[in-house]
Amino acid sequence: MSRFWSPLVHTLTPYVAGEQPALPDLTKLNTNENPYGPSPRALAAITAETTETLRLYPDPTAHRLREAIAKSHGLDANHIFAGNGSDEVLAHVFQALLKHGKPLLFPDVTYSFFPTYCRLYAIDFRAVPLDDTMAVRISDYRQPCGAIILPNPNAPTGTALPLTEIEALLIDHPDQVVVIDEAYVDFGAESAIPLVAHYPNLLVTQTFSKSRGLAGLRVGFAVGQPPLIEALQRVKDSFNSYPLDRLAIAGAVAAWEDRAWFEDKRDRIVATRERLSAALRALQFEVLPSAANFLFARHATLAGAQVAAELRSRAILVRHFPKPRIHDYLRISIGTDEECEKLLSGLADVIASLKK
Amino acid sequence: MSRFWSPLVHTLTPYVAGEQPALPDLTKLNTNENPYGPSPRALAAITAETTETLRLYPDPTAHRLREAIAKSHGLDANHIFAGNGSDEVLAHVFQALLKHGKPLLFPDVTYSFFPTYCRLYAIDFRAVPLDDTMAVRISDYRQPCGAIILPNPNAPTGTALPLTEIEALLIDHPDQVVVIDEAYVDFGAESAIPLVAHYPNLLVTQTFSKSRGLAGLRVGFAVGQPPLIEALQRVKDSFNSYPLDRLAIAGAVAAWEDRAWFEDKRDRIVATRERLSAALRALQFEVLPSAANFLFARHATLAGAQVAAELRSRAILVRHFPKPRIHDYLRISIGTDEECEKLLSGLADVIASLKK
Repeated sequence: MSRFWSPLVHTLTPYVAGEQPALPDLTKLNTNENPYGPSPRALAAITAETTETLRLYPDPTAHRLREAIAKSHGLDANHIFAGNGSDEVLAHVFQALLKHGKPLLFPDVTYSFFPTYCRLYAIDFRAVPLDDTMAVRISDYRQPCGAIILPNPNAPTGTALPLTEIEALLIDHPDQVVVIDEAYVDFGAESAIPLVAHYPNLLVTQTFSKSRGLAGLRVGFAVGQPPLIEALQRVKDSFNSYPLDRLAIAGAVAAWEDRAWFEDKRDRIVATRERLSAALRALQFEVLPSAANFLFARHATLAGAQVAAELRSRAILVRHFPKPRIHDYLRISIGTDEECEKLLSGLADVIASLKK
Repeated sequence: MSRFWSPLVHTLTPYVAGEQPALPDLTKLNTNENPYGPSPRALAAITAETTETLRLYPDPTAHRLREAIAKSHGLDANHIFAGNGSDEVLAHVFQALLKHGKPLLFPDVTYSFFPTYCRLYAIDFRAVPLDDTMAVRISDYRQPCGAIILPNPNAPTGTALPLTEIEALLIDHPDQVVVIDEAYVDFGAESAIPLVAHYPNLLVTQTFSKSRGLAGLRVGFAVGQPPLIEALQRVKDSFNSYPLDRLAIAGAVAAWEDRAWFEDKRDRIVATRERLSAALRALQFEVLPSAANFLFARHATLAGAQVAAELRSRAILVRHFPKPRIHDYLRISIGTDEECEKLLSGLADVIASLKK
């Protein structure tokens, strides 16, 4: 608290990111990073860009990256907005497109940054409860609203909606922007990007942090028809002309173009996820069906906070959210097979010790 | 215009950055970049960080960088806030610290992003005219206000205030935040950072884009007492947890620590500036006294827009602002001696052709 703060600052509830501790021998399954890292072509492109040209500002429009993304979807670059991670893209989305006379709708259990953005921009919102299976039910969104934002797959649950449901939502709300946050879409859900050409109210966001293994480079993007993209550009050009540095642009373009690396690593992560899911069930966990690179699971008898703390004491990090409805769940990122084995043996140990 | 835009978007006047054209043989003196590029130690640090660890999120607090900056000023890291270029830092500063019941004050001729930020955050502001010599006069700021922001040296004029004047401003306004934007301070002005320990109302911003030759990497920072830094962190953690990527943190730390490279290149730029200033005067330009890595100059008889356009047709870019009071000035970045020679011969040619 300080008399020097703008009044808004007193009202904020900052987002709390997963821990990034620098401990040796840590099994880090708490922030949904990709265990396999980025394409070697991305690293080579960054190295090639690491020259004295870093003295020059980057392209403020990141045209090369937007062009690469657009091309692979049969779109023009004016359908793409790029930013410093999809968190920055989402921040601009909230300010530019989601503040209207009626409340914004999103699920009660979802990406916990959403209510934080709403407080930052004084956006009225209403949380729509997930159904009893912890899934989004589209019919629950048939109510007056200013706009809608949904992750698909949802986070931290990992459950996905089929594209037909997303399309039904767009048809239900022709006069409202519908944002689909597809941070995890590559691991098993259907992207709504093919609908962009048909629905002027649709905006899709994606990130290079998960399926492209570049969380440390900070690149995200949005796809929509040009009027929606223009709104984001107007806010971005009122905030920071050059959000993406030269290395991020170069690395992201190369990562985007290495489709083979992307598919191989994605397939491995999906295979590991399915094995881990079965193994967790064998340890008496209820595991939600996941289309993401994480599992959301709760033990039949043990409290989530306790299991997370016990794992932490064994140098295994998973994410626990002390919140209504989900406080007994753990969100477990899919690591390598070896990391998942460490988690399972740690869990077996924790369960044995807690049941004593 | 679109019915999907938040109402705010219609009211914005986005900042227009200097052109970043990719033309061959261009003499680019329009965006105040450093002609000598970053320290080789910065490039080596970036290369060392370009590994599969890019799969992991960066440190959300950029602690290593904040520690390095703090240490060289005898401060703790809790006095430093780091962001994605000083433009992002300034955006957070406007939102977190400059919105109060009374208007924000800044010069009528100054960094043209300031009124843009005000529109983004609905901040009431009053532009205080520079005096007849195009300098800031501190006594003009003795009026009711919510906060004050001043670049020192000012941009695009390049003129600087002595530290005694900055201190007088702080004493005049003990209950208002006073932000000193020191993007160009290393080229000849006195930094206000030594005053931070004594004035809880002082915040200083700086950038790696100019004197550290890293415009392409996007790193800026603010220095102030912990309550001011906490306000920036609260806004940042409501906007984007990870604004600085791993490569930017590594490169900036190494650039900061290579003091010898920094001093050598800064001294060369200052020496070139003084030679260029004399040569421009010989071509009948009035040149404002500059403490920055650019000159602000107008010709005795020729219109600024015309000279800028003629230079552009000769592949020489300088910055021209079509605005009241300054439309006859050119802002000319200090390049290498060779680039400045090209500019001078281009100018001589332009003057001869326009006077025909």
